[in-house]
Amino acid sequence: MTEADTKAALQAYIDGFNAGDAEAIISLFADDASIEDPAGGEVVDGIDAIGDFYRQGVGCVTHMELSAPIRASHTSAAAMAFDFEMNIEGQIIRTSAIDVMEFDDAGKIRRMRAYWGPSDSRVVEIA
Amino acid sequence: MTEADTKAALQAYIDGFNAGDAEAIISLFADDASIEDPAGGEVVDGIDAIGDFYRQGVGCVTHMELSAPIRASHTSAAAMAFDFEMNIEGQIIRTSAIDVMEFDDAGKIRRMRAYWGPSDSRVVEIA
Repeated sequence: MTEADTKAALQAYIDGFNAGDAEAIISLFADDASIEDPAGGEVVDGIDAIGDFYRQGVGCVTHMELSAPIRASHTSAAAMAFDFEMNIEGQIIRTSAIDVMEFDDAGKIRRMRAYWGPSDSRVVEIA
Repeated sequence: MTEADTKAALQAYIDGFNAGDAEAIISLFADDASIEDPAGGEVVDGIDAIGDFYRQGVGCVTHMELSAPIRASHTSAAAMAFDFEMNIEGQIIRTSAIDVMEFDDAGKIRRMRAYWGPSDSRVVEIA
């Protein structure tokens, strides 16, 4: 994969959330992928569990935007800093995260780890 | 470690570069730490090699600044998006990176991985 390819996949992840298109997000992942969102939380293993995770996720996330340009690497991995907003019982909670994604030889995400902690969330608005 | 502790260590890393203080940076790392900067490049193993890496690094990096607030996690890890500038033969090269750092039980960095590729660097100025 080129650097442009890995960056395009991360941008598609953001775009999928903003379009509310869980299937577009899920299609980025390999069948044997695993995700840990947040890092230190539960590991979600395999495309079926990942599908459930994102179908639920797009219903909760109301907005996602990059904090800075997506970064590539010298291997099949890329990372991005972004903010996402969730409507939780009428409160808009904004969380700052960094996701790191590693790709397999077929160009699918094989591993995602999301760095954010409770200190990275704050109430920005009462809906 | 608290989230504030891991974030403070990453801020100290930035501050160490801007102060040109390699020893302050090296003191953040465990004796058995390893770093991979950039991810996909050579792995630098152990505090002696890491010391050499940063003593050389602070001589090349002229400026470092966060692109967005440092992110914590739900474990002893944190991540940050930042830009750094190097003076390479009279050209100022600015690179956008994301570093992920994992800490040991003593509060020292045991692993660092830096995500940036050739596409994340550009000439910003002729010195």
